[in-house]
Amino acid sequence: MKLASYRVRGRESYGAVVGDGVVDLKLRLGTRYETALDLLRDGALDNARAAAEGVRADYRLSEVEMLPPLLAPEKILCIGINYLNRNADYGDQEIPKYPSMFYRAPDSLVGHRQPIVRPVESEQLDYEGEIAIVIGKVGRRIAPETALDHVVGVTLCNEGTIRDWLRHGKFNVTQGKNWDATGSIGPWIVTSDEVDLTKPLHLTVRVNGAVVQDDNTGNMIKSFADLIAYVSTFMTLKPGDIIVSGTPVKLVKSDPPVWLKPGDTIEVECPEIGILRNEVVAEQ
Amino acid sequence: MKLASYRVRGRESYGAVVGDGVVDLKLRLGTRYETALDLLRDGALDNARAAAEGVRADYRLSEVEMLPPLLAPEKILCIGINYLNRNADYGDQEIPKYPSMFYRAPDSLVGHRQPIVRPVESEQLDYEGEIAIVIGKVGRRIAPETALDHVVGVTLCNEGTIRDWLRHGKFNVTQGKNWDATGSIGPWIVTSDEVDLTKPLHLTVRVNGAVVQDDNTGNMIKSFADLIAYVSTFMTLKPGDIIVSGTPVKLVKSDPPVWLKPGDTIEVECPEIGILRNEVVAEQ
Repeated sequence: MKLASYRVRGRESYGAVVGDGVVDLKLRLGTRYETALDLLRDGALDNARAAAEGVRADYRLSEVEMLPPLLAPEKILCIGINYLNRNADYGDQEIPKYPSMFYRAPDSLVGHRQPIVRPVESEQLDYEGEIAIVIGKVGRRIAPETALDHVVGVTLCNEGTIRDWLRHGKFNVTQGKNWDATGSIGPWIVTSDEVDLTKPLHLTVRVNGAVVQDDNTGNMIKSFADLIAYVSTFMTLKPGDIIVSGTPVKLVKSDPPVWLKPGDTIEVECPEIGILRNEVVAEQ
Repeated sequence: MKLASYRVRGRESYGAVVGDGVVDLKLRLGTRYETALDLLRDGALDNARAAAEGVRADYRLSEVEMLPPLLAPEKILCIGINYLNRNADYGDQEIPKYPSMFYRAPDSLVGHRQPIVRPVESEQLDYEGEIAIVIGKVGRRIAPETALDHVVGVTLCNEGTIRDWLRHGKFNVTQGKNWDATGSIGPWIVTSDEVDLTKPLHLTVRVNGAVVQDDNTGNMIKSFADLIAYVSTFMTLKPGDIIVSGTPVKLVKSDPPVWLKPGDTIEVECPEIGILRNEVVAEQ
């Protein structure tokens, strides 16, 4: 199933994407699950599948405003420098023993087709295409061998960054990663039964049609299972928590760097998931 | 008003602390506001005050299990190295231009009198007493001059840390700051009408009765207003968001360091707020 959240005819809803339409699940399950997050927290994906089964789409995708698949996840945990070539790019030949990690606030990510906003304070808006896993089952100290059982699905993320605010703090990148509406997530969550997470997923990023990142998750330093095992050593992972697994190296390096500018279109694509597309606008 | 969340007779609730008792607000306002966070999000503190006015306490504080005042805030944003002496302690004579910032997950903080848990993986559990401000009014790019209008109240935090996991990541302290139940927050939120936030608040931390930190918010590098102005430059602050404002230097330095151990009691005190007290237990 492809689980999406969206706004349609003045209300927020969620549903199952089927072809170029969406079966509204809130219409059918809303008294029990107000949001897609509530659905995941109750482990009720089977109810959702049953409700969508054989049903004609309620809306065309073109008539809904896509939102982040989960509107207010408790944790959006991002992994830094998790591709081998990106690590080398940071001038580091040694493979890090542990992943670098930081959080993003929900408001920093918009949904598919919603505008990404370049703020008035900076011109250094940058893209980072990534694959994100969504937790579906609570766990602490999860063994790598069973870690993928905790993944309810995968989605795409443009982990957009304001570079000149990234190192404001001595020890953390929080500021550069948390500007409102500077990244995106979606277009939907593809549930784990429809994608084989033990095999590499191909990730491609395009800016205005030109490929700027192209790699696969087989080159991640820490696999999805490794990340789940590591993170759950110290914190309980819960349904709806999101782990954004890191970005590959950029194929083209410019000096000085070229930043995203208003009018640019960024696409993050994985064949098994879909395409997350956003246009950049200048903040008014 | 002192706004608290707690568990009593098998249910979770919230209320107004009066003397050594609590007026249960969920009993009175629960159909409209299920949690203290819902109350803040609706800006309904006046309703809460009216409901508690002249009412006899429903429970003694001693018979409720105190929980973090807000159970699942969207953001718990912690400020690193914000006291002048702490900055010097880090070997840095220059005052940082911007604050260092990181997030904590809600599960990393327990409530007043709930046990703080030293995990099996580390003996390096450390305390950090801090004052936390709670946002009550939405805002972006808030001017320092009006920033305190956005504070609905203050509380105390023991921003407990697992030191040997603090620098796992290259650029972030996330791991050392996010172990389940390694810190605490509370005992309650004292609302802004009862505390003058323009004057320094005195902060004292005791371990087993001995004073280990003692300073006041007048020595913060960035004031509450500065922090709100800075953070809201890039992100929308919303009711229920919490900013933990940094910890002062430790009065006693040992080499090798002395860590918290099971049986230790940590108290974080501010006269205007109260005492946040927790005992350390070893994880089983």
